[in-house]
Amino acid sequence: MTAQSQASTATARQPDLAGILRADGKIRAILPPTPLLPVEIAGARIWCKAESLQPIGAFKIRGAWHRLSDMTAEERAAGVVAFSSGNHAQGIAWSARRLAMPATIVMPADAPLAKVESTRAMGARVIFYDRMTERREVIAERLARDSGAILVPSFDDPWVVEGQGTTALEAARQMEEQTGKMPTQLVICCGGGGLASGCALAVPDARITIVEPEGWDDFGESLRHGAIVPVGPNPPPTRCDALQTLRIAPLTFDILQARGASGVAVSEPEVADAMRFAMTRLGLVLEPGGAVALAAVLAGKIAVDDATIVTLSGRNVDPATYCAMIGT
Amino acid sequence: MTAQSQASTATARQPDLAGILRADGKIRAILPPTPLLPVEIAGARIWCKAESLQPIGAFKIRGAWHRLSDMTAEERAAGVVAFSSGNHAQGIAWSARRLAMPATIVMPADAPLAKVESTRAMGARVIFYDRMTERREVIAERLARDSGAILVPSFDDPWVVEGQGTTALEAARQMEEQTGKMPTQLVICCGGGGLASGCALAVPDARITIVEPEGWDDFGESLRHGAIVPVGPNPPPTRCDALQTLRIAPLTFDILQARGASGVAVSEPEVADAMRFAMTRLGLVLEPGGAVALAAVLAGKIAVDDATIVTLSGRNVDPATYCAMIGT
Repeated sequence: MTAQSQASTATARQPDLAGILRADGKIRAILPPTPLLPVEIAGARIWCKAESLQPIGAFKIRGAWHRLSDMTAEERAAGVVAFSSGNHAQGIAWSARRLAMPATIVMPADAPLAKVESTRAMGARVIFYDRMTERREVIAERLARDSGAILVPSFDDPWVVEGQGTTALEAARQMEEQTGKMPTQLVICCGGGGLASGCALAVPDARITIVEPEGWDDFGESLRHGAIVPVGPNPPPTRCDALQTLRIAPLTFDILQARGASGVAVSEPEVADAMRFAMTRLGLVLEPGGAVALAAVLAGKIAVDDATIVTLSGRNVDPATYCAMIGT
Repeated sequence: MTAQSQASTATARQPDLAGILRADGKIRAILPPTPLLPVEIAGARIWCKAESLQPIGAFKIRGAWHRLSDMTAEERAAGVVAFSSGNHAQGIAWSARRLAMPATIVMPADAPLAKVESTRAMGARVIFYDRMTERREVIAERLARDSGAILVPSFDDPWVVEGQGTTALEAARQMEEQTGKMPTQLVICCGGGGLASGCALAVPDARITIVEPEGWDDFGESLRHGAIVPVGPNPPPTRCDALQTLRIAPLTFDILQARGASGVAVSEPEVADAMRFAMTRLGLVLEPGGAVALAAVLAGKIAVDDATIVTLSGRNVDPATYCAMIGT
């Protein structure tokens, strides 16, 4: 994150439950709820929130819609810029098309083809950068400055956090309808923490556990240290492209720290097991990054009960990568 | 079908809309609706009914629950017998477990491992037969006679037809909620025609198109000839194991003939395309037999409009077979 975006964060409003409730109303008006599917694991019946079934294949549509639909007519005319490994890009592109706004997305050159193609199919302009040598924040900020468009970060934004938080609000409502109970625990896939912090605000009584890929578990490390620490200098390769966040933001960190959240890391084979489980037991395609929360539960790294909700956060994966992971 | 089961059909009640409405009430009480997902194909927005997300991974849970939950306490104590390539077996096993009834399932020795394992995991006894040399109807009828259990056929049964018909009733209700329109057309995966005939009764104003694998399209042939014709002597190998019905029944044929239904056949590569489409565009795992209706639409074999519903009827496929089909 640049000094400039830190400054803009510092002056921005804080996300809150009122904002989540308002986002929820707007999202319910255009998106049917994603299923909350029960499944038995280790003697407990846990509940899987299938955000992978959103029209763009990930929960990111929620935050993007909340942010863009709150823009003024003038702001909409100038358009929107985002940087994203893919799912946030698609959320922005989907929302921008629906609001007839121009959208420009800065994506890593090695983003999964499926994500690039769907972003373009939704009418957005895609600009590539090299993950190793260029800084996407810089490119995106320059694009925004030059065009007058608003930059929408993928997690460091109060609207985005509130929008993602509607996932937990919706899941809690479904659980209450189906079981009469409220969730005791949320297990959440985590990159920059937009989903996790929004969900933590939305369901204030549930225990919050975030899950990251091994070697990319800087959020969990930061929670253990009580201060933000970045990903180490040579993070391992991971197929969880959606969770490759090099440095988190005070906005999401402060919320999760205040809620006493804890973090767990999962290995690539554990992610593959979860993808296979989702396929054979739930009929759901999950991308690696969308399967980490389920992976932690299946690996026995998190104690669960009958009121645990696990986010299945996305499905955008190339068939070749998918089969390389689920193949037995 | 044996003479004995034909005779029992002839004396049985006919399935009707009142029965479907009664089944719908019972099914809504225990199963949340499966999603009705919009997707754009060839300029139209069609609606995919994701029965692949049922707890057993297929719509068959509906007919099985309607049949078993209507049994008397005495009948329940004697138990149930079924023959099935897998999905009906799982529907019966799931319902029997929930009602604490004994269940015995006769399955082909070459049924997908996933289906065999889940049937056993639900507490049913599995008895194998050889698809080429033995007749499962004979084995199942003997088991039923010896034990006093009731034999529940996979499609030639009024309860089963009514139960499966709730798929279309539920989908029509969802479409009306989301769009204000009623379906104009149902495109339905077809083996013995239980799902198709039930749906035809449930939504009497929609055009009905059934879809079968090439070489196994005896239902379509029968509709064209105006009389039941069996599958030819040497049907080709197919991965659509759920649709390998050698001979249909008057019960389902008469309903679909009276409704003016027509049939379409799809090739294995068309099925593979549909499975890949469901994966990348919907995030859904489909088994080959569960993808034939979508395959026919994607191949341009059926004209669609914005009020067309396509059934995605099942997801139970081994990972190896799945990847052999979606691999590019």
